[in-house]
Parts: sequence; structure tokens; C-alpha cells
Amino acid sequence: MKARIIVTLKTGVLDPQGKAIESALKSFGIDSVEGVRQGKVFDLEVNASDRASAEAALKTACEKLLANTVVENYAIEIA
Amino acid sequence: MKARIIVTLKTGVLDPQGKAIESALKSFGIDSVEGVRQGKVFDLEVNASDRASAEAALKTACEKLLANTVVENYAIEIA
Repeated sequence: MKARIIVTLKTGVLDPQGKAIESALKSFGIDSVEGVRQGKVFDLEVNASDRASAEAALKTACEKLLANTVVENYAIEIA
Repeated sequence: MKARIIVTLKTGVLDPQGKAIESALKSFGIDSVEGVRQGKVFDLEVNASDRASAEAALKTACEKLLANTVVENYAIEIA
């Protein structure tokens, strides 16, 4: 089944990359945008018999590799 | 209003980063995952009077800066 994992910085963690994007957008004349924070998205395919085991595998993947749980949150969406 | 932009590689565009993540996951014993493709997510706040103008500003942001439309697709979600 198809799944999407979204990894975002936790609230309060500084995001200089987001700040840089915000400045760049303003320099392009897009002033209405603020509070930009960048994260990562992973689209993947899981071979699992049921939703629960797919979710368990993806949770392990997030905890071990995809997210740094000290500073990042992750969300798993299974289609 | 809050918005989320998701930028992903178009189908057919090679994703060596995704391949590397897939190999790393397999080396951690997570074998059920395949076809990993990495993208970017931007969470931001738009100051706009209505949904349509917010969407227009974000579309400009994507076309000008956030996505390389030659090889990437973008999706705008306004909360």
C-alpha cells in the first residue's frame, strides 16, 4: 500500500532554512507569506498484509532513520 | 491562513536520494518498504483576505522559488 511520511521541525526549533526562504520570497515581491518552515516528505510503497503492520514498519523507519525525534515530528499517512 | 506546500519529483525523474534511503532502511531490517521518493514540505502562514488570493500568492511562490517545475510537481493545501 502507498504511504506518505511528513517530517517537520518541532515548534520552538529554529529553522534558518525557512527564514532564508521567507526572505527570498519577499525579495520576489511575495510579501503576504510568513512563518515559513521547511520539512521533508517521503512517498513510499509498503508491502504489508494489513494497515497495522504497515504502520508499525513505518513507525520503526521514522524512529530509526527518517526523523530525528529530538527536534522533529513525523506524521504517517497510509492511503 | 495556514498553508502547506508539498513539492515532489515528477514520475520518471530519477531519485538517487530516495534510493539511498531505501537501501538504508533495508540495512536496518525494514524490508517491506520500496519505491521511496523524497520531496519537500513547506508550512507557512499567508496573509490574504480570501482563499483565492492566498492560492494565487502561493502559486507564484511555487513557480518562482519553491519548485523547479521542469522536474517537480507541487501541491498547495490551504487549511
